[in-house]
Amino acid sequence: MDELGLASSPSLLVVISGPSGVGKDAVLSEMKRRGLPFSYVVTVTTRPRRPGEQDGVDYYFVSESEFQRMARQGELIEWAKVYGNYYGVPRRQIEEALRGGNDTILKVDVQGAASIKEIFPDAVFIFLLPPSLAELANRLLQRQSLPGDELDLRLAKAKEELRKIPLFDYAVVSRKDELDVAVSEILSIITAEKCRIRRWKIQL
Amino acid sequence: MDELGLASSPSLLVVISGPSGVGKDAVLSEMKRRGLPFSYVVTVTTRPRRPGEQDGVDYYFVSESEFQRMARQGELIEWAKVYGNYYGVPRRQIEEALRGGNDTILKVDVQGAASIKEIFPDAVFIFLLPPSLAELANRLLQRQSLPGDELDLRLAKAKEELRKIPLFDYAVVSRKDELDVAVSEILSIITAEKCRIRRWKIQL
Repeated sequence: MDELGLASSPSLLVVISGPSGVGKDAVLSEMKRRGLPFSYVVTVTTRPRRPGEQDGVDYYFVSESEFQRMARQGELIEWAKVYGNYYGVPRRQIEEALRGGNDTILKVDVQGAASIKEIFPDAVFIFLLPPSLAELANRLLQRQSLPGDELDLRLAKAKEELRKIPLFDYAVVSRKDELDVAVSEILSIITAEKCRIRRWKIQL
Repeated sequence: MDELGLASSPSLLVVISGPSGVGKDAVLSEMKRRGLPFSYVVTVTTRPRRPGEQDGVDYYFVSESEFQRMARQGELIEWAKVYGNYYGVPRRQIEEALRGGNDTILKVDVQGAASIKEIFPDAVFIFLLPPSLAELANRLLQRQSLPGDELDLRLAKAKEELRKIPLFDYAVVSRKDELDVAVSEILSIITAEKCRIRRWKIQL
């Protein structure tokens, strides 16, 4: 603060979303690898751990009964069942990270982003786009063997999620061989948002 | 373009403004020094050339009668008299730069920015803030010897200009010893703006 009453922006909540298979986890991993001073909200999930994933870092891996207890007791600000697995966002983690003054990164599916927006309207919403639907199909097929019907279903769902783009503030293309481009764009968005007029407090 | 119909953003017009003495020229010089692929709109002015300034690069330095001819013939999209000198923005330069596909940087005083906004509502408007009014006074005094009354007048004008901040999209603090911070923030703003949902065209 000085005589202009310039006040620095409070910490931002940055919501990163996009269709299943677009590479949300890969983008988050690259952000973490760079050691930037962000808090990352760790989602609770009942889905099986993938190779290389760490409990408490990539996700909190919990049983279905533990998940249901958390949901019942209001510990999850938002939760959803996605392709047979539950995913939930722990309320206290977001609140503590923001109070701690860190910019806070939350990864959530597209439906979840809409719910988060109602609770945190000042958050920044970033949609990760696949370079094309063909590329999204490739990624889904590489991740696990899906029967043809299931793939069609997921692509139809992805198209439906793409229609929710107007709820978001920004879109960033996630290319498998250019993760650093997507991450740089996300970092630029965070820097720019802190300069947005609506986030400044200026007293004259 | 691909099956998602993703279309890259067209070229941006980026308007950089702020009170007299805030360091608009210094920020622009630092941007140019970095050799980034932008087009810079060169303002026409009747003010005397400062040491180190180049005609056609920093400004087009013209006589008052030449300036008045340009204004009369509609060659200036916007012009103003600021502390006894005329400044004008050549219309054709902006139009040609944008048509050429380059992001285009325009430096203009605060009053001018408001006029530009009416003509180019999709432009990005960045306000350069001084770290404090005391620092702004220092810079004005360093630049030229001003009688006390004149300094008070300029500071009052700067305060009035600061009240126009809500017209702008972003504010960036211009610190004399940290020009690179201001420039990095401006570059982040340009990158982020290209990711803004309203600048994407997505067909589904």
